Amino acid sequence: MPEIQFYLNDLPGNDFNTLFKRLTEFRRNYEGLSFFVMGTPGSFIERIFPQNCMHLIHSSYSEFHWLSQFPLLTTAEGLPLNKGKIYISETSPPEVKEAYLAQFQEDFTNFLQCRSKETVVGAYLVLLLNGRQSADPAIKKSCYPWESLAKAISSLVSEGPMEEEKPDDLNLPYYRASQEEVQQIVQQEGSFMVEHIETLVLDVGGPSSGEEDPCIRAKKLAKSVRSFTGSILQHHLREEVMDKLYGEKFAYLIGENMSKEPIKGISIILVLRKLYQQALHVTFCMFFYESSQTYKHGEKGLLSG
Amino acid sequence: MPEIQFYLNDLPGNDFNTLFKRLTEFRRNYEGLSFFVMGTPGSFIERIFPQNCMHLIHSSYSEFHWLSQFPLLTTAEGLPLNKGKIYISETSPPEVKEAYLAQFQEDFTNFLQCRSKETVVGAYLVLLLNGRQSADPAIKKSCYPWESLAKAISSLVSEGPMEEEKPDDLNLPYYRASQEEVQQIVQQEGSFMVEHIETLVLDVGGPSSGEEDPCIRAKKLAKSVRSFTGSILQHHLREEVMDKLYGEKFAYLIGENMSKEPIKGISIILVLRKLYQQALHVTFCMFFYESSQTYKHGEKGLLSG
Repeated sequence: MPEIQFYLNDLPGNDFNTLFKRLTEFRRNYEGLSFFVMGTPGSFIERIFPQNCMHLIHSSYSEFHWLSQFPLLTTAEGLPLNKGKIYISETSPPEVKEAYLAQFQEDFTNFLQCRSKETVVGAYLVLLLNGRQSADPAIKKSCYPWESLAKAISSLVSEGPMEEEKPDDLNLPYYRASQEEVQQIVQQEGSFMVEHIETLVLDVGGPSSGEEDPCIRAKKLAKSVRSFTGSILQHHLREEVMDKLYGEKFAYLIGENMSKEPIKGISIILVLRKLYQQALHVTFCMFFYESSQTYKHGEKGLLSG
Repeated sequence: MPEIQFYLNDLPGNDFNTLFKRLTEFRRNYEGLSFFVMGTPGSFIERIFPQNCMHLIHSSYSEFHWLSQFPLLTTAEGLPLNKGKIYISETSPPEVKEAYLAQFQEDFTNFLQCRSKETVVGAYLVLLLNGRQSADPAIKKSCYPWESLAKAISSLVSEGPMEEEKPDDLNLPYYRASQEEVQQIVQQEGSFMVEHIETLVLDVGGPSSGEEDPCIRAKKLAKSVRSFTGSILQHHLREEVMDKLYGEKFAYLIGENMSKEPIKGISIILVLRKLYQQALHVTFCMFFYESSQTYKHGEKGLLSG
């Protein structure tokens, strides 16, 4: 019987203990199969495996959309380039788009370079990324829900002086790439051949999705967004204003959006193959995804939102 | 530069999170070296790695002295065979020694059989075990400190009726093997050649060890023993009597022992080599040891005492 080895990767600060405890139960359902599961702590834009040993790398909605660092968005004089916004927006100057794309290119290239060293020739990378459909990252649909979150923050600021807060410095380390951008980075890096690439549009909420009260659904969605952005915003806004921001202002704005049109989730499916054909052995690596609140700046892992 | 892969094994229930967090600091001290560390949850008397992939297995004072299950110590009629004792004793009938040795043989054979499948030919196993010096497991020195713990329990029982307690059923799932027993099991299993075996005697406490108040030292030692036996005794004694048992009765008895003669710790160093010579690659596995209170019956791992 073939033996399969799985490596589950995440940042060292995330919760491997719970995963390992659940594995015992999981194994009981597959008693006839011979497989081994290891935990691999580390950032996937760095080396995490020895050279030339992996045969399949899979990442399902991991951290590709989170940048490893905040894009540099200040003028030569140190003034904020993207004031009043927290992501690329229709009113952002071109330097903002360029800085975001440059950081994504750097991170995704690092990911490919590391995996290129670690995989055998002929190995597959099967990746699911959060992406965007439009060529322009500034059009409204691509900026969802950050345009609403920026508006919610501006509304808070307009209500009174915010002495300790620095909302103008806040730009989310987040980027939804397009299929063309991803494809171009793969080609430039040069280790992998694109076997398949596809953009999927999924309905993730809106007027057509079920019978639930739109107000309750908006609050749920706001809570979910808080789970992976709250820790970042805490560096710029006081803890005391966070409930009002997410629970009232942001929930109201996304509720308004949801009542107008369905919210679409854009995914990019990417199947890459390490160039030059060779015999394959059986060793697997799985990146796994779980929503979590432990995102830290400057780190990329897979459990963290 | 060569790349080295380490696998750190422990039972799935133990704390890998703390280990992984500390690894980040650890790596900083070895920035020039190229190594990768994985966590491997599982019991080492079962298969934990794929076939034919490991090159060095190291275990330092892990769980070999803990048996995977309680030895069967009842008569055909279900009466306790080792009444008033919790381990092999000078007054134990021969069946007790036989049952303990049989369970150790089974566990250690399972360990060797699993590692035999997982290692490449020529691989080394470097093991440090808690053992004993005498051929007879019943002589006093080999039974330390279980003779004192049994006496402490008997003393508690003699003080009053213990309706809920079942001290007669208690036999620790623990065995300190001799060098000869270990060597015989290795030879019977047949996959490994003994390259080196040695018994070390270490002074771990007693009149000659420092200036500390013997009473305080005895209490510390009793506390340490409680950390890895407390969870087992809880199945047989009420929580309420545990403080008195370890803090008073047991501490007094081992204090008496310590004042008479030094306590010796016996270790067996064992270096085994997988039979038949072959080229070695570079993959390592390290079992690691840490004192902990999470020992569970019927499981063997490496963080648990």
